[in-house]
Parts: sequence; structure tokens; C-alpha cells
Amino acid sequence: MLRVAIVGPGLVGSGLIEQLAAHAQSPRFAGLPIAVVGLINSKKMAVSATPFAAGDLGDWQTRILGSSAADADLAQFADRLAALGGPAAVVDCTSSDAIASLYPEWLSRGLHVVTPNKKAFSGDLALFRRIQELAGAPGGPSVYHEATVGAGLPVLSTLGDLVRTGDRIVKVEGIFSGTLSYLFNTFSAPDATQTFSKCVAVAKASGYTEPDPRDDLNGMDVARKVTILGRVAGHALDLATLEVENIVPEVLRGVASADEFMASLPDFDAHFAQLNREALAAGSVLRYVGMVDGATGRGSVRLARYPLDHPFASLKGSDNIIAFTTERFPSPLIVQGAGAGAAVTAFGIFSDLIKVCERFGAGAA
Amino acid sequence: MLRVAIVGPGLVGSGLIEQLAAHAQSPRFAGLPIAVVGLINSKKMAVSATPFAAGDLGDWQTRILGSSAADADLAQFADRLAALGGPAAVVDCTSSDAIASLYPEWLSRGLHVVTPNKKAFSGDLALFRRIQELAGAPGGPSVYHEATVGAGLPVLSTLGDLVRTGDRIVKVEGIFSGTLSYLFNTFSAPDATQTFSKCVAVAKASGYTEPDPRDDLNGMDVARKVTILGRVAGHALDLATLEVENIVPEVLRGVASADEFMASLPDFDAHFAQLNREALAAGSVLRYVGMVDGATGRGSVRLARYPLDHPFASLKGSDNIIAFTTERFPSPLIVQGAGAGAAVTAFGIFSDLIKVCERFGAGAA
Repeated sequence: MLRVAIVGPGLVGSGLIEQLAAHAQSPRFAGLPIAVVGLINSKKMAVSATPFAAGDLGDWQTRILGSSAADADLAQFADRLAALGGPAAVVDCTSSDAIASLYPEWLSRGLHVVTPNKKAFSGDLALFRRIQELAGAPGGPSVYHEATVGAGLPVLSTLGDLVRTGDRIVKVEGIFSGTLSYLFNTFSAPDATQTFSKCVAVAKASGYTEPDPRDDLNGMDVARKVTILGRVAGHALDLATLEVENIVPEVLRGVASADEFMASLPDFDAHFAQLNREALAAGSVLRYVGMVDGATGRGSVRLARYPLDHPFASLKGSDNIIAFTTERFPSPLIVQGAGAGAAVTAFGIFSDLIKVCERFGAGAA
Repeated sequence: MLRVAIVGPGLVGSGLIEQLAAHAQSPRFAGLPIAVVGLINSKKMAVSATPFAAGDLGDWQTRILGSSAADADLAQFADRLAALGGPAAVVDCTSSDAIASLYPEWLSRGLHVVTPNKKAFSGDLALFRRIQELAGAPGGPSVYHEATVGAGLPVLSTLGDLVRTGDRIVKVEGIFSGTLSYLFNTFSAPDATQTFSKCVAVAKASGYTEPDPRDDLNGMDVARKVTILGRVAGHALDLATLEVENIVPEVLRGVASADEFMASLPDFDAHFAQLNREALAAGSVLRYVGMVDGATGRGSVRLARYPLDHPFASLKGSDNIIAFTTERFPSPLIVQGAGAGAAVTAFGIFSDLIKVCERFGAGAA
């Protein structure tokens, strides 16, 4: 049995708990026993020698992390989990830098790490290398983070397979933000009629953007994903030196509130309309893309043009798309689909947990 | 170390040998030692306790399976491989039914099986189930066959992840034949001008079709892939009862030779042109697709229409495309790219070998 402990069970963690509980109850999956034995949020924690019951998991907020649970203490949490013995994985569902910095300690204690948290893989290069070193040790624990790029889409597993089998990566290029996918799929199409500010307003009202849409438009989320892809491809990318095109108009970057930003954005509709007209006149559309150049080992994030018959141009909704151009795939290998959302992110984590289960002898026992 | 023995090293096997030899020589991959120790073709065989040297592999036809090699004997080949001890995988690069029927014996002896040969997974259901049973046993050997559908594209691994994590498969739909992809991408497009028979002739001359193009147009290759996908999704699909649209005109099915078939095909250009006109008039194009319906558990292969903004309509060259529509991915998860060719097929096999290596403790030793 693979024991799983979840740190920061919010939307994604709850989705994962739901999927794992359904899995545990289905006889079809008896061969891959994965059970939740630990939960910790900012206030409370619980670690159990036996798996939590499905009924308790269904109402974990009160039945597991309710007022009678122990106070949260991350060090004790890891201690207790390690003390249970047998293969165990910590699933970090936060987006915290502080928690990411604990991975080396967890790995040193033999705990596997599975996470959608981008911080450890796109932040400090020394932390990333330390994690790689610990996870690469013979017989040592593993780190899986498929859901850090494209949620449950097979992006990092595919890139990893290409790299590990010796393919030469020419280029990894994609639309890695559901928000920016939606914005430009809507704004930049031959039959589109909405202004850019209106597209942003609709996306914000639909909950597709961060509370302050500048946190999407500044490209930093895409930059983190490009950094991760570059590092998985073997390049020492650094977020701080990445070439990122921030499409927040310069004068609006310092504006204090999201509301003020939204109120002033229409002043720049003419600017975006002009870019769009130029693209359409050239038979192209605008897409906000991230790219890793395999030859130079450099990454970039920018607003670029793609011809109408390019797969990026026909993207719909808020889908992600990733194209791997390699020596073996001169016509690129493409993966596309929903790259955000609780269920698909939980799926990515769950798939990683199954890999840990298979690799570390935690199968039917 | 994972010992690998290759049965029937033709184009794909040679591609794999090349990739494995490059891998073995690269210090970057020291953590995943995979080495070729056995080769057998229809005439000769060799099994070695120590891995073949890269130089010998580079000229295996004369240096390993030359006239001084032992005569081919599949039973002895498996005996010798099993006798070496430690994790070992047989890679079946043939398309033989007879060799597929040996998998249960190999698995019973603890040998892993990795193969692009579709026969065991799309043929006799009893053989398939026996293989699943043996490969699913606790601590038992594994079977991987990613390259049976879409060559190296992450198709079966993705479907397997969806199924194993409890997603509900609504539909798996795709263009699974490079030949038929090329034919209809060329023949059925708004600006296409070639007759159907001319498209087939060009494809044949370019080596894209089987020697007799009817072996592509009858849909049986696609039907095998649909059968495999259906079975991986948990349905007991049977090739014999699959609904397959054979697009070889009925009167040409009995024609003796490929040349006679090609000579008579132009008589049916008006028929295909009519289908094409009807599709284009409805804003669609023709594509030859395979489909597994998750609700009914049935498979089908047919010539269907797709609107111009559908991802299947904008496919290029001879690429494959596969769309997984599931409960978690109502907007489908799509994988596309080259689905045929020695290098990408070898890549699919190699990725599977790495999974065996990781799962069965054959890592850095």
C-alpha cells in the first residue's frame, strides 16, 4: 500500500481526495492500493496508521481536520508519516515557496513527493538541483510533478520520455495558461468582435483570471512553466533571466488596485486592436506562448502570431496546447486539452501516485 | 541492468538498437542501464551473458547474426535469456501471430514483454486475457505495448492513466493510420484538386501504403488499433464483430493483383468525388476514423465528416490524432503527431523499456 499525506487540501486536494476515495472503494483497482493517511492545512493536522475511511474523507473538514484534530505542525506531520513505515508520498497542494523548501528534508527521510506546486521546479536553481539529486539516488524516493505544467495533460511525462530516450529537443512551444488561452482565442480570431478590455472583463467575471488579471497578463505563470519545461529538458533556466513579454500596459503596472486597472484598460483597446489587425492582415492570429529553444537552451514568453491553419490558431475555450519538435518528431508531437481545473489537476497527481506505487513495490500486497 | 532481447530486428528493431546503443554510450543515462543481450531473426540467433558492444550492434547483421551465429530457435532463445537471471525483456518487433502466442510462456518464465506487434492485443480474446492475467500478478513481469497504437505517441499510457484513476471514458476517437491520414488530408480539403485514385497512386509510389493499398483501405489495421484501445478501456472488443467500413469498392475486392486494383480504381473517382463534394458543401471534410464508444463499449471504423474547425480537419501530412473525451475532459484531451516510422516506433518501445527498468528495480546498480 502507498500511504498518501496531503498538504493544503483546497480545491485540488479535495478533488484528489474524492478521486482516491472512489478508487479505494472500487474492486477494479485492488491491484494498486493507494490510501490517504494524512491531512494538514494551515490550522490542523491528522496522521493515521490506518487509512481514513471513505465516509470520513467525504467530510474531511469536520471529521478529520475538525476542532478536535491536533494543531498543524509540518515537522511533526512528516515525522509521524515517516514513522508509519512502508512507501509513503507527500502531496503538496499548496503554491507555497516555504513548503517547497521542505522537499529535500522529506526526501531525505524516504518520503516521495508528488505535487502541482510549481515553486520548487521554477524557483531557486540550487533547491531544484538538490531535489533532483535526492530523487535520483539509487533506491531513493521519487519526485513527480506532472501537474505543474498543463495539469493532467501528459506533458512532462512525454518530455521526460523524449529526453531519457536520447531524442534531441529542437523546440518546446505552447499555450500554457488557460486564462491567456481563453483571452486570445476569444479576442484574436477572424470573426472576433470584442475589444481586449471586454475580453478581460468577461474572463474576470467568469472566474478565469486571478483576482488581479495583471497576475495573468504579466506572463509570470507561463514563465514558471517554461522554466520547468526547460529544466526537464536539461537546461539550467532561471526565472529571473527569462525573456518575458509582460502585456500589461506599462503605465498600468503601478496602478494600485485591480479595479483601477480594469477601469483604465479600455484606454489601451486601440493598441491591442492594432496588433490584432496586423496579425489578421497577415493571415494570422495572436497567441500568448511560452517556448524553450533546445539549441540555445533559452526560454521565452511572448505574444506571437500563428497562421490560421496552425494548431495554436484553432485552439478553443481555455485549452492548453504543447508542441514538441524534436529530431524524431520534426512535425511536432502535440498534446492539447484542459490545462487547469481541480479534477484534471487531481488526475495528474493521481497518475503520478500510481507511478510511485508501481515503481516502489507498493502494488497488491 | 535490464537485459533486452530483440525478436525480428527489421527496420523498427534496427532503429531501437541504434537508440539503445547511443543511450548506453552516453554518461547522461547511466542511471537507467538497458543493454541488448539477445537477437534473433528467422535464421540466426545470439544470446550473450554480457551486453553486446556498441560496435557490434552497429553492424549486427554480420557481427552478431552472421553465418557463425547459432541457428534460430525461439524456445532455446527464451531459455538462454531466462537463464541469465535478473530482469530481462523480450522485444517482439515482428507482426507475427505465432510469436504473439508465445508471450504467455515468456511471461510465465518471468520475462517482461515489450512490443509494437498488435496481434496479441487485437486477436484472440483468450490470449489477451491470459497475458493480462500473467502481467497483472503481484511481483510478476509486465507487458507494455505503447507502440501498437500511434507508435511513440503517448496514447495507451494516457488512456491507461485515465482508466486507472477512475475517469469515465465517454469516447476515444482518432485517425490511427498514417496512410489513411495522408490520403484524406490530401484528397479532402477545401482547396484539394486531386482525384482519389491519384492520391492513392501518389501514396503508393511514395511508399506510404502497403504493397497492395487495399490492405490499408479495408480498415483492418485501424480496426486492430480500435480493438486494442477498447480493450485497454476495459471492453471485450472482438475484431471479428467490429463494425468496419471497408472503402475498397466492392467489385474491386476480389481483383487478383494490386496492379489491377490500381488500374480500375479511377472508375470510382466519381463516387469519392461525390462524397467529398457533399462533405465540403456541408462545411466539412472526410476523415477515416476509428472510435470506441465508452457508453456502449462498442468500436467502429468508418469514413466520417468533420467540420473545418475540428482538429481532425486541420491534420497535416500523415500524422495521427487521438481525442479522449471523458468525464474529466469533456473538451477532449488530444494527442497528435507522427504515428508511424522506425524512429518514433522505436522511441515508443524504448519508453516502455524505461518503465520496466524503473518498475522492476533494474535502475542504477
